Amino acid sequence: MTNIPDNRVEFLDDFEAGKEFPLGSFTLTQDEIIEFATRFDPQSFHVDPAAAAESMYGGIIASGWHTTAATMRLMVDHLIPAEASLGSPGMDQIRWLKPVFPDVEYRATYFVNTVTGSKSKPDRGAVNSTTRLFNPDGEEVMSFTGVGFFLKRPGSDL
Amino acid sequence: MTNIPDNRVEFLDDFEAGKEFPLGSFTLTQDEIIEFATRFDPQSFHVDPAAAAESMYGGIIASGWHTTAATMRLMVDHLIPAEASLGSPGMDQIRWLKPVFPDVEYRATYFVNTVTGSKSKPDRGAVNSTTRLFNPDGEEVMSFTGVGFFLKRPGSDL
Repeated sequence: MTNIPDNRVEFLDDFEAGKEFPLGSFTLTQDEIIEFATRFDPQSFHVDPAAAAESMYGGIIASGWHTTAATMRLMVDHLIPAEASLGSPGMDQIRWLKPVFPDVEYRATYFVNTVTGSKSKPDRGAVNSTTRLFNPDGEEVMSFTGVGFFLKRPGSDL
Repeated sequence: MTNIPDNRVEFLDDFEAGKEFPLGSFTLTQDEIIEFATRFDPQSFHVDPAAAAESMYGGIIASGWHTTAATMRLMVDHLIPAEASLGSPGMDQIRWLKPVFPDVEYRATYFVNTVTGSKSKPDRGAVNSTTRLFNPDGEEVMSFTGVGFFLKRPGSDL
């Protein structure tokens, strides 16, 4: 893990519409990709190096679910405030735009679309965000948009 | 794994709009949930039994990304035809509707929304589908809608 940001987000109040947070980066080894996919997505281009070499991808690529999970880890490590996080009701528009290969460093960002206080529960609210993953050439390889619930700062006027 | 269906789907042609395929079921242990979340989603309600017991969930629950990955495994084992699968460009509308708990058997289904032949590549096409996960009471706990690319049967008229 390199390029580790400290975003100092503690409560819903610290997310701000239009703001982008760096999430750092990850690199997956071929062994990690094969291990994840053997458990969850054992398609040949994720688990069988010889078959993957013959496929349109030219080699092992990560399961899209591995890519989203590894990106989630960056969000937990570098952004989501542990004390204030109340989970997520869902994600929209996961886009696996380009294959994710072993031994390549992928960098992620978290863009805040909206921050909304709950009408029924005044101590909390929702962040709608788009998380994006980039390869070393700056090309977007994956993105998803979704919602997270967070507690407000005590005394918040959100 | 129980209730293992054999859907005998080989090519794009075997998906049919309006058809629902059973995907069987999975059960996650608390150790599996904690292991996955320790790697990918180390929030307290996924990894710390004592903290989870104090949370609104009342105990350890699976990371939503674990739930989607475990459901993907059912799709690969019981539906997706290995020889014809060309991967997926994305998913929409992942909904984590209810918590997924350890030691509970969850059953999944795959509903075919549309089957579309590619205009540019006549040997293949796309299936738009909604995968749903149910608890033993028949309540929907998770769903996602997405697209998979598959080869057509040789000589297909799709």
